[in-house]
Amino acid sequence: MKAVVFDNGLKLETNYPKPTPQKGEALIKVNTIGICNTDYEITKGYMGYKGILGHEFTGVVVEINDENKSLLNKRVVGEINCGCGDCEWCAQGLERHCPNRSTLGIWQREGCFAEYVCLPVKNLLEIPENVSDDEAVFVEPLAAALEILEQVHIPPYKRVAVLGDGKLGLMIALALNAAGLDVVLIGKHENKLQIAKNQGVKTKLLADVEIKKEFDFVVEATGSISGFETSLALTKPRGTLILKSTIAASKEFNFAPVVVDEITIVGSRCGQFAPALRLLESKRIDVKPLISDIFDLDDSIAAFERNKDKSSIKVIVKVK
Amino acid sequence: MKAVVFDNGLKLETNYPKPTPQKGEALIKVNTIGICNTDYEITKGYMGYKGILGHEFTGVVVEINDENKSLLNKRVVGEINCGCGDCEWCAQGLERHCPNRSTLGIWQREGCFAEYVCLPVKNLLEIPENVSDDEAVFVEPLAAALEILEQVHIPPYKRVAVLGDGKLGLMIALALNAAGLDVVLIGKHENKLQIAKNQGVKTKLLADVEIKKEFDFVVEATGSISGFETSLALTKPRGTLILKSTIAASKEFNFAPVVVDEITIVGSRCGQFAPALRLLESKRIDVKPLISDIFDLDDSIAAFERNKDKSSIKVIVKVK
Repeated sequence: MKAVVFDNGLKLETNYPKPTPQKGEALIKVNTIGICNTDYEITKGYMGYKGILGHEFTGVVVEINDENKSLLNKRVVGEINCGCGDCEWCAQGLERHCPNRSTLGIWQREGCFAEYVCLPVKNLLEIPENVSDDEAVFVEPLAAALEILEQVHIPPYKRVAVLGDGKLGLMIALALNAAGLDVVLIGKHENKLQIAKNQGVKTKLLADVEIKKEFDFVVEATGSISGFETSLALTKPRGTLILKSTIAASKEFNFAPVVVDEITIVGSRCGQFAPALRLLESKRIDVKPLISDIFDLDDSIAAFERNKDKSSIKVIVKVK
Repeated sequence: MKAVVFDNGLKLETNYPKPTPQKGEALIKVNTIGICNTDYEITKGYMGYKGILGHEFTGVVVEINDENKSLLNKRVVGEINCGCGDCEWCAQGLERHCPNRSTLGIWQREGCFAEYVCLPVKNLLEIPENVSDDEAVFVEPLAAALEILEQVHIPPYKRVAVLGDGKLGLMIALALNAAGLDVVLIGKHENKLQIAKNQGVKTKLLADVEIKKEFDFVVEATGSISGFETSLALTKPRGTLILKSTIAASKEFNFAPVVVDEITIVGSRCGQFAPALRLLESKRIDVKPLISDIFDLDDSIAAFERNKDKSSIKVIVKVK
């Protein structure tokens, strides 16, 4: 089968072995794939991962190696973390923290950037009829956005800023706004901010923001250390800064303001798929305007190149 | 009067002007002073402070410039942050976050390392009869220890580690243990750990600790970036790391583990005095074994030198 494989370099393989579903797994024919910045980070060495990339997909179940065949021929999305099923984390539905987990296209498990992918049946959710593949392919990043609400209680009278108007920041702003929160999305790109503005989100150009400690909650979604520092500077004493991207300080970093202002920093990663799918089904947010580019699987390398360009937002790939 | 003043260098002045209480303030004759590592940090440039050092003291009120004279001739301790009295922070009793605050011996207000000090009457608390000056001088750092319980809800079945067996770590371990929590104090010094052990706290030498993600809550009280990194490595996924000291990463710092493991980092600084005084009054903890050295005010420079030595714990200074 065709597959986009990272092994030092990035390559579109045309004769990669089609996977075989293990006991409890389903084989899914992939329809639509989303490119995430994590995929790009992996091509720079993140997690030391080698193999088929990709963890955002929609597809149709074509084979099930399990007694429960109810999802056969259904259109599905799939949770990306596969837990051992036996530890305290899995017992809580937090497979994402299982110490023996594998993660689709990121850690110990071949990803979905291919014609076929395997996942445990229990990871799969059927896509509601009124949600298209182009929408459902956003479920994984949208779940990551909603993870904020799973971790942190944000009272609706508190002020929330989301810093960064990339695809993650846009989705977070849309999701928090849909939850009735008082959100302002701060970014550098008028055209990207406009996508959120069109759906009722307050937006501001970073250049127009007076940097002062005025927000109770700040979501850092720029992925840069300077964005993190700006986020800190926007957070009120005793406020909460939610860190959505795996950044590293390349030079020195001073934690004194965190202690002096008694800031809480919350690391936030993956989320549950069901609330994200429910949000898409409700049509309270529209993710389609985030799609900046659509490529064919045959042009995946170009799609990855396009994703690197800051003028892109969400790049998706279609499998014929 | 005699006063220990920092102005580039540290100096014992013998003819420093005695302060005059402003409207609403009391003049306190100082009895006992504690040296805090923040004092040492100030002598290295922290906060850019110049003036009389010191923010831990006991004393007797000798003059009050206020209608309410009830504290005259009483033995007192004093909250170190002086707020404007008019903002949202002061309204919540969080003067420590008032943007226009002054802080005793740290920011915009002469400290207590002298024969006399002034503070607003509303900052003062009478010391209960059964609490000695040698105990009451710990109220400020003990309040900082208890601040953890003000900020973070720690269920009693969760596992807590305190990293660092210096004076702050010891006090935190004693305070959390007294609150009925499941605490282990981890440090490098058998003799310091023994002080906590004698009061029923579980202790472990760092060298004997297998560094793995096993604690729900970890309190970083080493004041070093390597201690912070060890604290992170001891924190379970979705756990909470409480940062008690103003550290700075001198080289690069990678936030990826914070995000991947969804760790919460809580910056924590000063606390309310009343609960700390109540804890001392209850005799549920004994802070006196933390006193490693007692100096006379005339020997303050030697006291500061002694505080730098890691074999010291709490250095206190007596005013004749």
